Amino acid sequence: MSSAYGERIKISIFGQSHAPAIGVVIDGLPAGETIDSDRLQAFLDRRRPGQGLHTTARKEGDVPRFLSGLVEGRTCGAPLCAVIENTDTRSRDYDNVLDVPRPGHADYTAWVKWRGHNDVRGGGHFSGRLTAPLCIAGGILLQLYERRGIAVGAHIAAIADVKDRPFPPVEITAETLQAVRERKPLAVMDEEAGQRMLAAIYDASAQGDSVGGVVECCVLGLPAGLGDPMFDGLENRIARAAFGIPAVKGIEFGAGFGAAALRGSENNDAFCIRNGQVATETNRHGGILGGISTGMPLLFRCAFKPTPSIIREQRSVRLSVMEETDLVIRGRHDPCVVTRAVPCVEAAAAIALADVLL
Amino acid sequence: MSSAYGERIKISIFGQSHAPAIGVVIDGLPAGETIDSDRLQAFLDRRRPGQGLHTTARKEGDVPRFLSGLVEGRTCGAPLCAVIENTDTRSRDYDNVLDVPRPGHADYTAWVKWRGHNDVRGGGHFSGRLTAPLCIAGGILLQLYERRGIAVGAHIAAIADVKDRPFPPVEITAETLQAVRERKPLAVMDEEAGQRMLAAIYDASAQGDSVGGVVECCVLGLPAGLGDPMFDGLENRIARAAFGIPAVKGIEFGAGFGAAALRGSENNDAFCIRNGQVATETNRHGGILGGISTGMPLLFRCAFKPTPSIIREQRSVRLSVMEETDLVIRGRHDPCVVTRAVPCVEAAAAIALADVLL
Amino acid sequence: MSSAYGERIKISIFGQSHAPAIGVVIDGLPAGETIDSDRLQAFLDRRRPGQGLHTTARKEGDVPRFLSGLVEGRTCGAPLCAVIENTDTRSRDYDNVLDVPRPGHADYTAWVKWRGHNDVRGGGHFSGRLTAPLCIAGGILLQLYERRGIAVGAHIAAIADVKDRPFPPVEITAETLQAVRERKPLAVMDEEAGQRMLAAIYDASAQGDSVGGVVECCVLGLPAGLGDPMFDGLENRIARAAFGIPAVKGIEFGAGFGAAALRGSENNDAFCIRNGQVATETNRHGGILGGISTGMPLLFRCAFKPTPSIIREQRSVRLSVMEETDLVIRGRHDPCVVTRAVPCVEAAAAIALADVLL
Amino acid sequence: MSSAYGERIKISIFGQSHAPAIGVVIDGLPAGETIDSDRLQAFLDRRRPGQGLHTTARKEGDVPRFLSGLVEGRTCGAPLCAVIENTDTRSRDYDNVLDVPRPGHADYTAWVKWRGHNDVRGGGHFSGRLTAPLCIAGGILLQLYERRGIAVGAHIAAIADVKDRPFPPVEITAETLQAVRERKPLAVMDEEAGQRMLAAIYDASAQGDSVGGVVECCVLGLPAGLGDPMFDGLENRIARAAFGIPAVKGIEFGAGFGAAALRGSENNDAFCIRNGQVATETNRHGGILGGISTGMPLLFRCAFKPTPSIIREQRSVRLSVMEETDLVIRGRHDPCVVTRAVPCVEAAAAIALADVLL
Repeated sequence: MSSAYGERIKISIFGQSHAPAIGVVIDGLPAGETIDSDRLQAFLDRRRPGQGLHTTARKEGDVPRFLSGLVEGRTCGAPLCAVIENTDTRSRDYDNVLDVPRPGHADYTAWVKWRGHNDVRGGGHFSGRLTAPLCIAGGILLQLYERRGIAVGAHIAAIADVKDRPFPPVEITAETLQAVRERKPLAVMDEEAGQRMLAAIYDASAQGDSVGGVVECCVLGLPAGLGDPMFDGLENRIARAAFGIPAVKGIEFGAGFGAAALRGSENNDAFCIRNGQVATETNRHGGILGGISTGMPLLFRCAFKPTPSIIREQRSVRLSVMEETDLVIRGRHDPCVVTRAVPCVEAAAAIALADVLL
Repeated sequence: MSSAYGERIKISIFGQSHAPAIGVVIDGLPAGETIDSDRLQAFLDRRRPGQGLHTTARKEGDVPRFLSGLVEGRTCGAPLCAVIENTDTRSRDYDNVLDVPRPGHADYTAWVKWRGHNDVRGGGHFSGRLTAPLCIAGGILLQLYERRGIAVGAHIAAIADVKDRPFPPVEITAETLQAVRERKPLAVMDEEAGQRMLAAIYDASAQGDSVGGVVECCVLGLPAGLGDPMFDGLENRIARAAFGIPAVKGIEFGAGFGAAALRGSENNDAFCIRNGQVATETNRHGGILGGISTGMPLLFRCAFKPTPSIIREQRSVRLSVMEETDLVIRGRHDPCVVTRAVPCVEAAAAIALADVLL
Repeated sequence: MSSAYGERIKISIFGQSHAPAIGVVIDGLPAGETIDSDRLQAFLDRRRPGQGLHTTARKEGDVPRFLSGLVEGRTCGAPLCAVIENTDTRSRDYDNVLDVPRPGHADYTAWVKWRGHNDVRGGGHFSGRLTAPLCIAGGILLQLYERRGIAVGAHIAAIADVKDRPFPPVEITAETLQAVRERKPLAVMDEEAGQRMLAAIYDASAQGDSVGGVVECCVLGLPAGLGDPMFDGLENRIARAAFGIPAVKGIEFGAGFGAAALRGSENNDAFCIRNGQVATETNRHGGILGGISTGMPLLFRCAFKPTPSIIREQRSVRLSVMEETDLVIRGRHDPCVVTRAVPCVEAAAAIALADVLL
Repeated sequence: MSSAYGERIKISIFGQSHAPAIGVVIDGLPAGETIDSDRLQAFLDRRRPGQGLHTTARKEGDVPRFLSGLVEGRTCGAPLCAVIENTDTRSRDYDNVLDVPRPGHADYTAWVKWRGHNDVRGGGHFSGRLTAPLCIAGGILLQLYERRGIAVGAHIAAIADVKDRPFPPVEITAETLQAVRERKPLAVMDEEAGQRMLAAIYDASAQGDSVGGVVECCVLGLPAGLGDPMFDGLENRIARAAFGIPAVKGIEFGAGFGAAALRGSENNDAFCIRNGQVATETNRHGGILGGISTGMPLLFRCAFKPTPSIIREQRSVRLSVMEETDLVIRGRHDPCVVTRAVPCVEAAAAIALADVLL
């Protein structure tokens, strides 16, 4: 109970930021599926740090090694395990953390839960680094989904107060998804908005501060009728996976919080016939009704809080003596995690859908 | 996989709107816990329809009968089953639904998933009526939590474009929670806002329309250190339960989507010592860091879409002939489910916390 | 965690011997399956008490009432709940049990686990009566399996020291299964052995004693390739379900404990081609290799201990004063549960296979 | 769903016989527990091959490397991952297996289940080699249990037709357990029986054949009241774990199959007061009543079939052409797995108890 997800397809993530390795076991994958290592690597590279001023300077190859589950590049039915060795770790940056928890991090809560035995180096198991095995699992699943006609893509919907244009909820295509999610330097619909986002990041960074944002994700090609009622609906599944990404503090589907201010006559999506299939004219429901897919694009947004690691002096407490103290955080940190979070949100969606798709 | 929640404490909800009964099995409750039927009934009455113009005219006693798990009013360790017989059902109102799905409802998705065998009467298993067994489970758990010093309370944070004052994130007390959640006719902090909410409901209702809203919920008294990393954090658990309530389309914790627009220096909550305990000066993290409780008030908000059942004519399709058609919905419906959803959100929180609290 | 089984198809059993009702929720059944009530009743009647001298005198109708999950006799996708009201209960027979646990029963262990709050009347949740909802679930599943060409049947392999002829492990047919499992008064291959079994039961009963026995069960028609490696093999699944029947103390598959004394050359089943399909010449593996079905008849045996409730005076302890004492058990009890256990073992097999078959 | 076990403590085993590595993830271990590597290695060495004529000649170091979950030798709350690299693999021995399944192995069933994509080398994921990560998990858990006063020990109860003296069911002590389980060359109570077992193994081996046997396991120090009713009783849990060991075909608790031939008056264990505690005079119930521990020694036995890999020519089928054929198995194999299975059974018991003990 904690870092495992799924029933038929079980995904178990392990590792700490400064442990010998991080990795994932995927149990229950269909056999005979080719895993394209290059494409997986390209997917992982999208969350890699060290790509510019707006991300941490830590250099990591993040090349997964497959320990099991593959025979000549194809799944063999046995649980697949992939690991990434942790090489570039500077543990001494974190000495102080043991006693003075960083605001906005899990240092204090992990210390209480594990009675002081938690691995504090680099955030331990709570590090954003653990999104690498999340992306390994997601990247593998996405290859399987693509073969089944299902495309998953996300973009940066907002950074600080700069908003990207949203995905068009009805007309969105797989081509658009692909183009946008891999756009450099930022995965945005509106490149001008992207420039302003970068400016917002640089500005915060220059002030020793950080910014948050929103990622919007779309799943295309889901047939109608997938999901389950009540606690295993698609919203429940995706939310459970998405809150597994550090820094996510909110999730909404379709019109989401905006729907709360609409009237029923404005929010309901009329059913229609399109290309001989039942569809809806609009898509405020985000592709899900009663927890079950309607066949329309599945759309959701995740809110990311600003990176809690900032260079500015902050107030905290010294746990050993229960006294308040000042804290200056060292180490290398992203002024904005949202830019790297785009593939993580896609991966979370992929993980959430495994039990209903495979 | 669907209407069951929990590992150590398993909650299994059953029933359809017009089946002989609806109910719940709770497996794994501690033994020796007194269940006060009157208090449970008072809790259930808060979600009962028929309390005024702003809710459906359907009359239901909603008195649960305990089939098992209790000996002389105390839990005995065996699974507890409680049922509510469905008496006031007018199935003929729903004849048309079989072929013409109602926009915004699960009629179409259930029809696809279950290949036409779904129970369409009153929404079947997707009916808001299924929140009654959800509230039985929640109401029972809340009695156990109260004995352990934990209080759960929610209020209407918004209806349509009318906003209530939020819970004060640091100073909120159990007394305030209790006063607000049971306030009549609406559970609000600001009674004047409540009056405007009622006006908004009446206004929509008079136009054959409906409104949505937001419910904010608080859990007080949680010790620090509860929850698990990654997929079993408190956010993951609560989100999975909350999306089990029909019409919920978004959830956020603490500053939530608002945090996305803040800087780290604005969003981080400084640690401090308060009453000899580690606390935070502010509470934008909503009582959860790294999925684990900090000991501060746990705060989250759920967005409810407007009731999809509206009297106005809508567009839909006739499935048997795959043709577009007009649809006028009959039957009795709430112009706003948010007023009755307050105890449901409390119940969802209670269900989500069972595995970490008991 | 306790009286629930299954992942995709979740079965949750509730009730105590003297609670208002006992019952079961089955969540995840395919929709559109007709449930034949008469056939289900005939299945339940096979475990019913009161059919002769060799079973308890307690009279029970054991007619399940369906609370949910069915529309006009067909599954509708929503969780199915069925209950049996407990009517003929004489609680005063069990007054003494509260303080003096009956040897061989769960009175003492339940008292410790639930700190004295357990329901002692009639064994509470540990009563053999709870096999009625087990059989409701099993009986329903068996109807679905039959439609898919899968037959499940069991017989009494032994009572006391009297042994029935085993099922022929390769040649066994669905017709034989059906004839044997419903044979009256005992479900045996060899009717003469059945007569001697009855004599052994009467003999023990006359002496205020009880006897145990063995039930052998066969599943026919399973295609090859079902099941999973390691912890979710068919053996693991069936064993987990079978030990859910009170009084089962052992289980073996194929040659089972007998295989331990064989050599590899004697125990291995040679593969062959039969009717154009891969088969094995013999069937000491019981239809399972590596946890996965081979397509051969699946065969297992469950050992039942003798009914612990005997009329003879026994030694026990008075818990309130921690003193040894004599105990004479009153109430109505079977001198042999094995005769009624035959459908229970079939039901356990059905429950165990639901996640791999449906 | 397959190679994972547990709810609160989740154990996920991965690897194939000839994959780069085998290993295990343990999620949910308490933090702050010291793991003694030397003692773990000593435990693993008990299942190591290459210790004499009676085991396979394959040489393996089987030294686990910890990738995560430990900080300076102590658990830190994060999931623990340990792997063993596979070095001494001769894959070409198995070329023929792809098309001609070995009798008694999972080659055929895995081929069907995974449609020909299964890893056939060395039995793939079904290899006895996968008991190494099982033993890593078990060996770690046993260290935690020992600190809590719980001892687990097994011995060879039988090989072929040679029987060891059983554990004394009431008087068994932790000292006896320790002495017996580590006895060389065989873990037996009666060393003379051990000599005859060796002779039986050598005799079979000389004839190109193999033998099976029985392992008896004891858990000492369990307090009364652990376990759950029905599907999560200790028998259910242990059986589910034990059938995860390849070659196990039966399990029995206490008097087991022998109880089936006893009368109630012979099988019931009278309660008594011993050292001020409730105990039973005898222990035919094997320490479990109603699925819950009584506080008496927990005793169970597992039946192992003879190693299916034998040198003698056998009959099988050529799958590609669906024709019968002769098969001679090459490679290195144990004439008897029972000698190495002793720690595996202890490990399975340890895994089964994790959710109730930690």
